[in-house]
Amino acid sequence: MKSRQSTDAPIKNYDNLIQHFLDRDKKALARIITLAENDPEAARIILSKLCRHIHGAYIVGFTGTPGSGKSTLISKLVTFLSEKGFKIGIISVDPSSPYSQGAFLGDRVRMREIILDPNVFIRSVASRGRLGGLAKAVFDIAILYDAYGMDYILVETVGAGQSEVDIFRLAYTVILVTVPGLGDSVQVQKAGLLEIADIMVINKSDLGGDFLKINLNMMLDSYTRQRSWRPPIIRTIATDGKGITELFQAIQEHREHLELSNNLMMKKRANIRYRLQSLIESYLFERILEKLSITKKFDNLIEKILSGSQDIYSAAHEILQPLLKKVEKSL
Amino acid sequence: MKSRQSTDAPIKNYDNLIQHFLDRDKKALARIITLAENDPEAARIILSKLCRHIHGAYIVGFTGTPGSGKSTLISKLVTFLSEKGFKIGIISVDPSSPYSQGAFLGDRVRMREIILDPNVFIRSVASRGRLGGLAKAVFDIAILYDAYGMDYILVETVGAGQSEVDIFRLAYTVILVTVPGLGDSVQVQKAGLLEIADIMVINKSDLGGDFLKINLNMMLDSYTRQRSWRPPIIRTIATDGKGITELFQAIQEHREHLELSNNLMMKKRANIRYRLQSLIESYLFERILEKLSITKKFDNLIEKILSGSQDIYSAAHEILQPLLKKVEKSL
Repeated sequence: MKSRQSTDAPIKNYDNLIQHFLDRDKKALARIITLAENDPEAARIILSKLCRHIHGAYIVGFTGTPGSGKSTLISKLVTFLSEKGFKIGIISVDPSSPYSQGAFLGDRVRMREIILDPNVFIRSVASRGRLGGLAKAVFDIAILYDAYGMDYILVETVGAGQSEVDIFRLAYTVILVTVPGLGDSVQVQKAGLLEIADIMVINKSDLGGDFLKINLNMMLDSYTRQRSWRPPIIRTIATDGKGITELFQAIQEHREHLELSNNLMMKKRANIRYRLQSLIESYLFERILEKLSITKKFDNLIEKILSGSQDIYSAAHEILQPLLKKVEKSL
Repeated sequence: MKSRQSTDAPIKNYDNLIQHFLDRDKKALARIITLAENDPEAARIILSKLCRHIHGAYIVGFTGTPGSGKSTLISKLVTFLSEKGFKIGIISVDPSSPYSQGAFLGDRVRMREIILDPNVFIRSVASRGRLGGLAKAVFDIAILYDAYGMDYILVETVGAGQSEVDIFRLAYTVILVTVPGLGDSVQVQKAGLLEIADIMVINKSDLGGDFLKINLNMMLDSYTRQRSWRPPIIRTIATDGKGITELFQAIQEHREHLELSNNLMMKKRANIRYRLQSLIESYLFERILEKLSITKKFDNLIEKILSGSQDIYSAAHEILQPLLKKVEKSL
């Protein structure tokens, strides 16, 4: 689907759809998320009307390798939160997650419970398309969940790639789910994950985990010396619902820590800055780069690079230099 | 490290370093890769002098979840290739890879063999930094490996995130490494991986793999109907070196297929187009967006979005509209 760029076309106002959304109609929420993903112009109109309704849902990120029981843990936490009367939105960016596709039988049963719960909404996001598109999609869904009235937004990712790390900028509390025996050192050493985790979970604790806990504690000792928050290590058996209360308490404690230290506001401000930059960047791409890259000059440069007679850096400069001169004058 | 933007500063010509590089001095290669990563201006100068030396190294991508034995498989293939007299460059983008960090004892022994081999060079790339930075780093190293005289460039990633998928654009042959018993369906279902894989490997075949093979074949039946190449399934036991010859043959066959169908040239052209776009995009970011985002206007808009009185889309438009008008006139 293409965005409508023409300003002559009659502009839809989406008022009816927005009213259903504000009346907490799940179908309207689903429809608006799809619109926001596929139609930038619709996204702009709808979000301009919904931004007043943002009340500050609390965003929690979950990461961990496939097989760590992340999805089961999230299901149990969701049920726990729903029973307390909270509204929860789930965003799944893990292609191997039962929320995304290809659920196993046990997962399907669990999922049905959750999908039928009026307090819960699930959306999965495919990790495809242009660079940055994934993070943008997740950010937009989070905003819509917030305006819809969700109290908690849970984001699930495999946490291995760059785009996943970008997604974690969004979350206020990041939970790293580990599991005993699944290559302990590998899980713990995963570059970058330890630094961004606020809570460590050892899931499937019935299978062990003492050694993993020692390992995690050692890593934390070296990483968290300068930080005001030391990530607690929570042991869970998600399939039996064990440790879910403790996990919720840890999330609450981290939230309080962020609020008291004024870090929550700082995180929110940094998120907006990042989103605004990304948005401008994607507009720059659409409006400038896409036009540039279908010119004859661009094709000629590609052939020169292919034959080895010109390097890619000087080619990029050749295209941009005249453009940048004009732009920089206007800044 | 910041790039030197000033044109008044004396420009280094790096001639001495480049001469060592062309004499196949590993230290010069390492030094130039580091320069290219940290100093865009140096990268530009050096690559403009090296582009003549590009001869067309063959690029092979490896992906698979941690624990699939990817790195062991690569080691054995590298030894095999080196014994045939080929020069091999490895780029590791998998943070859990022994090539990247935290090698286990067995890995360390294997790595030492490879590192001491004069035909082999290894570079690991951290999956951090700004979006797109990872793919750019990998592309630059590949160009340098090629100019250095490598015959094969092997790129290793976990293949889970968006940035990894971007890296696969670079590889001519993509190998998906699976392993029996490690959640077969999860590995196979990994969104996007099946579509980009040219060769399937079932590693650790001594642990089974018949069911996985049936599974893979079923997936391939539905995916590859319209494609001219059906990915072969190779069974290996990397630790014993079993199946390495067959794997090399499969790579050769796929390479011939690409060459005969003229797809190799198309892939190379598409790579250059993508790299040129990315490079221009990153310059646009540096020169326009970074300047824009430290203005007072930008800060004011962030506060408005934070308070819910403005949405992010209209804020982005407010910043870009005057700029785009000027730029579009000059296109």
